[in-house]
Amino acid sequence: MSEGDQRPIGVFDSGVGGLTVARALMDLLPDERLVYLGDTARGPYGPRSLVEVRQFTAEIVGWLAEQDVKFAVAACNTATAAALETDPIDSPVPLVGVIRPAVAAAARATRTGRVGVIGTVGTIGSGAYDRTMAAIAPDVELVGQACPGFVELAEGGRTTDAEVRDIARATLDPLRRQGVDTLILGCTHYPLLTGVISYVMGEDVLLVSSAEETARAVFRRLVDDGLDARRDPAAASGALHRFAVTGDGRVFGRLANRFLGPRLSGVGDPTAQVEPSVWLTQEEATA
Amino acid sequence: MSEGDQRPIGVFDSGVGGLTVARALMDLLPDERLVYLGDTARGPYGPRSLVEVRQFTAEIVGWLAEQDVKFAVAACNTATAAALETDPIDSPVPLVGVIRPAVAAAARATRTGRVGVIGTVGTIGSGAYDRTMAAIAPDVELVGQACPGFVELAEGGRTTDAEVRDIARATLDPLRRQGVDTLILGCTHYPLLTGVISYVMGEDVLLVSSAEETARAVFRRLVDDGLDARRDPAAASGALHRFAVTGDGRVFGRLANRFLGPRLSGVGDPTAQVEPSVWLTQEEATA
Repeated sequence: MSEGDQRPIGVFDSGVGGLTVARALMDLLPDERLVYLGDTARGPYGPRSLVEVRQFTAEIVGWLAEQDVKFAVAACNTATAAALETDPIDSPVPLVGVIRPAVAAAARATRTGRVGVIGTVGTIGSGAYDRTMAAIAPDVELVGQACPGFVELAEGGRTTDAEVRDIARATLDPLRRQGVDTLILGCTHYPLLTGVISYVMGEDVLLVSSAEETARAVFRRLVDDGLDARRDPAAASGALHRFAVTGDGRVFGRLANRFLGPRLSGVGDPTAQVEPSVWLTQEEATA
Repeated sequence: MSEGDQRPIGVFDSGVGGLTVARALMDLLPDERLVYLGDTARGPYGPRSLVEVRQFTAEIVGWLAEQDVKFAVAACNTATAAALETDPIDSPVPLVGVIRPAVAAAARATRTGRVGVIGTVGTIGSGAYDRTMAAIAPDVELVGQACPGFVELAEGGRTTDAEVRDIARATLDPLRRQGVDTLILGCTHYPLLTGVISYVMGEDVLLVSSAEETARAVFRRLVDDGLDARRDPAAASGALHRFAVTGDGRVFGRLANRFLGPRLSGVGDPTAQVEPSVWLTQEEATA
């Protein structure tokens, strides 16, 4: 058994969206420590030029290297498009993006050979998904659709109301008419919108989450290279993660709650307040 | 616009596994309040008889009805097998299980018509997946494989080490040899093991999570029936959920941390400790 590699994994995004990738990594690799950077002071990256985003990505990867990460994940479609798939930067640490794992998964999953991809205006406009699909599976036809407003809906926690459904219908209608059978969620915010996206596209359309596919790709690479962390027997439970932002930590904190999971006071703490039930309780839960 | 329905959704399981379903519901339906019951005093249900589990489920659904839920989700494959798919109970509230949504999704996704399902000994032995697939898609061949030990690995947070990979290889090898192209995760614990399951089965095998498919089915049903909750403008952020257990609340609390998401002190709180970064910080995060 190899020694493994106890150094953390770096994860970065222009803001909170990459937390869906971080959460998928925490699920699949509970012994890995993450260092997450949200570049909230300069995000969102969508409206920025690819040249600018490429420069920001190079800076962030440099900072993550200083944090001694063993591996960096660009948990941001725009950064992946700009700094990995268009004009690759020279990274001081191994760097993985979210586009390739999702494209590969969609190419494998499609039955009709007609795949859709949705993302921000910047990501779709970059053509990075088209180039990656052409390289991986030239026979698959890829139809892109920018979804302005989806990020704001996800961050606002608006996923069900009639107006949201109308926006989703109007935005996704071109894709529906094109008859795609598989749809790549090409923005890390979109996993929170899979309810309404699936509702509008129809159950027959398979959704491919770049967050989940990327987490599986990272799992595979770490294990293949013997770089997965070995559990610290002294650790109480799970790894400790660090989150850093370049902008306002409070705004990030509020949004992070929505992306990382529910707000339960103290769950996971031995003195947690898990609401006790008097129903059939054999041993009362501690308050 | 209809009034909606502000009553909570009931979710239950024999323990913590159903929290993967609860989390998917929270993601897709952030305005819904959940009442979760983990029947930890009598769980796991896997080794119990279907007659017993059917009786437990009837009791729990009765209790959830007393909590005034609008809808109950059996977030437990064994309970779904026993009380919905084998000999349906007479439920006082609309009741949805995890088997049908996953089977329907797998039947739609398979390209070769050969689908696998993994679960506990009890779930696989019940034949509920086979009957449901036969009813929904009689042309699809379903291959079941019980995975003893997987629940313990997921609860223990063991997902990567060499022994885990050996267990997964030995357990899943029959399915690999059968050449399934789609695999249903027929246990609510298994989403936490998708890294190693995908690693062992190979990237070509599509994984269908009963947790996610069930959440999408609930979304669809609530919206179609106009039963989705309307946001309370007074609410600060998101809905408040209640968790109840029949056994030890501390054990549940510790495991819930692993299932619901990472343990970040105070994220989501306006006074949260989001670790500030000095790198390019424009406005320092509050401690």
